Amino acid sequence: MGVESLQMLTTSDYASIISMNLFVALLCACIVIGHLLEENRWVNESITALLLGLCTGVVILWISGGKSSHLLVFSEDLFFIYLLPPIIFNAGFQVKKKRFFVNFITIMSFGAVGTLISCSIITFGVSQIFKRMGIGTLDLGEAVAIGAIFAATDSVCTLQVLNQDETPLLYSLVFGEGVVNDATSVVLFNAIKSFDLEQLDHGIALQFFGNFLYLFIASTMLGVLGGLLSAYIIKKLYIGRHSTDREVALMMLMAYLTYILAELWYLSGILTVFFCGIVMSHYTWHNVTESSRITTKHAFATLSFVAETFLFLYVGMDALDIEKWRFVSDRPGTSVIVSSVLLALVLIGRAAFVFPLSFLSNLTKKSQNEKISFRKQVIIWWAGLMRGAVSMALAYNEFTMSGHTQLQFNAIMITSTITVVLVSTMVFGMMTKPLIRFLIPLGHPPKQKNSLANLEESSPKSITVPFLGGRQDSEEVDNDNDNDANDSHRPSSIRDLLTTPTHTVHRLWRKFDDAIMRPVFGGRGFVPVVPTSPTESDCQLQWD
Amino acid sequence: MGVESLQMLTTSDYASIISMNLFVALLCACIVIGHLLEENRWVNESITALLLGLCTGVVILWISGGKSSHLLVFSEDLFFIYLLPPIIFNAGFQVKKKRFFVNFITIMSFGAVGTLISCSIITFGVSQIFKRMGIGTLDLGEAVAIGAIFAATDSVCTLQVLNQDETPLLYSLVFGEGVVNDATSVVLFNAIKSFDLEQLDHGIALQFFGNFLYLFIASTMLGVLGGLLSAYIIKKLYIGRHSTDREVALMMLMAYLTYILAELWYLSGILTVFFCGIVMSHYTWHNVTESSRITTKHAFATLSFVAETFLFLYVGMDALDIEKWRFVSDRPGTSVIVSSVLLALVLIGRAAFVFPLSFLSNLTKKSQNEKISFRKQVIIWWAGLMRGAVSMALAYNEFTMSGHTQLQFNAIMITSTITVVLVSTMVFGMMTKPLIRFLIPLGHPPKQKNSLANLEESSPKSITVPFLGGRQDSEEVDNDNDNDANDSHRPSSIRDLLTTPTHTVHRLWRKFDDAIMRPVFGGRGFVPVVPTSPTESDCQLQWD
Repeated sequence: MGVESLQMLTTSDYASIISMNLFVALLCACIVIGHLLEENRWVNESITALLLGLCTGVVILWISGGKSSHLLVFSEDLFFIYLLPPIIFNAGFQVKKKRFFVNFITIMSFGAVGTLISCSIITFGVSQIFKRMGIGTLDLGEAVAIGAIFAATDSVCTLQVLNQDETPLLYSLVFGEGVVNDATSVVLFNAIKSFDLEQLDHGIALQFFGNFLYLFIASTMLGVLGGLLSAYIIKKLYIGRHSTDREVALMMLMAYLTYILAELWYLSGILTVFFCGIVMSHYTWHNVTESSRITTKHAFATLSFVAETFLFLYVGMDALDIEKWRFVSDRPGTSVIVSSVLLALVLIGRAAFVFPLSFLSNLTKKSQNEKISFRKQVIIWWAGLMRGAVSMALAYNEFTMSGHTQLQFNAIMITSTITVVLVSTMVFGMMTKPLIRFLIPLGHPPKQKNSLANLEESSPKSITVPFLGGRQDSEEVDNDNDNDANDSHRPSSIRDLLTTPTHTVHRLWRKFDDAIMRPVFGGRGFVPVVPTSPTESDCQLQWD
Repeated sequence: MGVESLQMLTTSDYASIISMNLFVALLCACIVIGHLLEENRWVNESITALLLGLCTGVVILWISGGKSSHLLVFSEDLFFIYLLPPIIFNAGFQVKKKRFFVNFITIMSFGAVGTLISCSIITFGVSQIFKRMGIGTLDLGEAVAIGAIFAATDSVCTLQVLNQDETPLLYSLVFGEGVVNDATSVVLFNAIKSFDLEQLDHGIALQFFGNFLYLFIASTMLGVLGGLLSAYIIKKLYIGRHSTDREVALMMLMAYLTYILAELWYLSGILTVFFCGIVMSHYTWHNVTESSRITTKHAFATLSFVAETFLFLYVGMDALDIEKWRFVSDRPGTSVIVSSVLLALVLIGRAAFVFPLSFLSNLTKKSQNEKISFRKQVIIWWAGLMRGAVSMALAYNEFTMSGHTQLQFNAIMITSTITVVLVSTMVFGMMTKPLIRFLIPLGHPPKQKNSLANLEESSPKSITVPFLGGRQDSEEVDNDNDNDANDSHRPSSIRDLLTTPTHTVHRLWRKFDDAIMRPVFGGRGFVPVVPTSPTESDCQLQWD
């Protein structure tokens, strides 16, 4: 035991203790307020946190006499090393796998081609408009950096405004796009550094494409291997025999290990940890004891939830930081104009790929059900407009550390980024829920609501949940969409033939999975050993 | 989404990414090896982690050419702000409450009076022996600091070597002592700073006692209030109605809030978070949904487990840090002698209070069952000998930051602390399990094994666990020991009369709890609202 109380004071960390107290108290407040506003159609949890952060910032600014609105010093490390991985891992862990892979090609085209289109438009627009307005002359590298920062969908925001259970197709498209475009962004940034962008030719384009492919495949493989390894270890050693905690700890640590390994090897950690989450939910999750399943499911979701709330709280608080605004105070008009230009370019850039790519995607789909209707395209366009903490972290990195000497220009870019983030999250975010309700009314038949819902028959397990009996047509929480029974029993219909390509792949995968993967890595149906320790008492669950 | 991979490299944190990879991989290895060695009677998880840390330290030392054995820079903050709270909170959350409170007076006397005795002996011994050996002349403040550092039982080590289910009485005594003596240490350290220790008189002793009482009561109250507030909020607002994750997040954050509030107000955070854990397991835990109960139970245990493993891994790795050993390399003999003196003083200091205080405690107990047998006294003495990460963190603080000019002396003290920690954890730790088996053989009747076991009839819930049916005489995992049924139905016997004082208090508490506390704060028997959201499907548990 110790004497820590006193030691702390002597190490002069008293100020940081105050900050942490306030921050944790604010997090608690966000949770309670978010709960009370749950039914509200305008406000979601992220906007609550953002507003609470803004209010606290005002109070701190007032108390400190206009010196600071900060509580914690926000570092990119904190963000990319601690907050982002649990959010993305949980998204992979809870994602509806079947729907994700059915739409895989569309998601890939949105994430890769779409981001490139959007980035090009923003890059071009920014360099042209800024030059004419006399704000500053950008070299191509800077312009591409701005393009990459503002072209990328913030998947954290997407998780907040789109509901996987209400609008599963839209969720998987917009969120999947967000995950894939991380790889695109990494390649783009590498391109800025390593290629001479002034001389674009076919060779460089090919190299660019090769880089992207390598990054995408390597990151995915790393995540998949990490997930499989965890499944194998837990199955082979019966970790749950002695302790549930070891299973949970091992899953958590191995998922995190894949993320930082990806960072170590210059890959896309987000892609890696996302696929690790998918593999873990398909294999590892089924190899652990029942208690561990419930624990991991909820603990990962909780970690992700706290990290998200933390992020938005911080962004709100940080927005008022007085130092950033001081530089632009003599040219307030410029900052407003730059913000407006950026917002407009974001709107245009996203429209420029969502509608054409959706059109192309619809051409390949023969079934009316699988096509993306115009109303859905509008929602995809709108829901992906938000820019969040990621954009802010990147803007900081680009405009404060790059050794750029144009102080004024950098200050304008940072305040404009903050403005874009606040406006897009608050205004666009608030309007997303009502927009979805307006374009896809609740009174609609379920078929229209979830255009792919009838691809997935309600799985056997959902029937065992008695009080949900009346809602079989809507989506259930469904940790993996392996509806073997339905796949084999479903009578062949015309739709089956029409949708053959995806289904054939899926059927082949099922065969491979059952014959080779599951005997080695466990997965659904694997019965973990009954724990012998008296401290472990398994529960008979109806859930899943 | 982002471009984090590249950004990381530019911020020159690549070295820290490598460290984190290695550290997380080592944590995974510890878990797997710990699982494989589970049945081993000599090695426990902490020793595995310590050895693995030592080996890694050697490898790093070898690779770096003798420059460093570090991976992460260990800061007291990391330890006291992030690692310690989950460990202590979980201990409070999982502790057998009834047993803890039945032995409350003994625990208090061990934790407060015992620590004082032990500290005095070490202080006196150190100042006398060091003076005669010519190692350095200590002023009283330094001697008391050394006494306080080495008098305190490391509760983290206790959790590792004593098993709550196998030796519940010993566990509650030694661990409880560790929690209480934190308050003693804080008072001791305050005393060093604020009182003139050269002039000890009755007034100062009284002030000292008053300080201790204030600290103890205030810390406990803060923890209890935090726990009750969380119970009230979760019960009143039915947080689980919308989301299980909010419940879990709120419990976690509020527990943490009490800890840092205690730090903010100069109280003992360890005492606070320990009592917060107790209250949360008594009230809050029963107000949440079934999924949240399982999640919190296992998630808190997992966090605590990972934090412990992390600690021991670090201590092992840190022990080889070459800079610390450089200063003492010209006087290797001194370091060995100092370490031996300290170890001997720790042994004597602990013996000097365990046996007398146990004797006094036995005088107040009339039932033979409740008395602490000599064999148990030996185990209590032995199991509390380990000094761990807490001692190391405190030694660092005292001997590197206090502005002391005797560099050589400081270096000797730090290396000696490391030696004491390693020897006590490895040698004493390894021998604890065999010692317990030797002194309390497994063949013994259960009554002897758990002398207080028959105070607690097996509670109703344990009967519902079918595969444990044959082991009702041993301890079940028992998140709260509220056996109402047994208390009211039990026929009055002679033993009841003999043990009246404790039981009367317990009966009064039960009445108060049932009449006033439970209607307000929920607790056992409170039925949380059935969640209406389709994402929440409760399970019918047999567990608990």
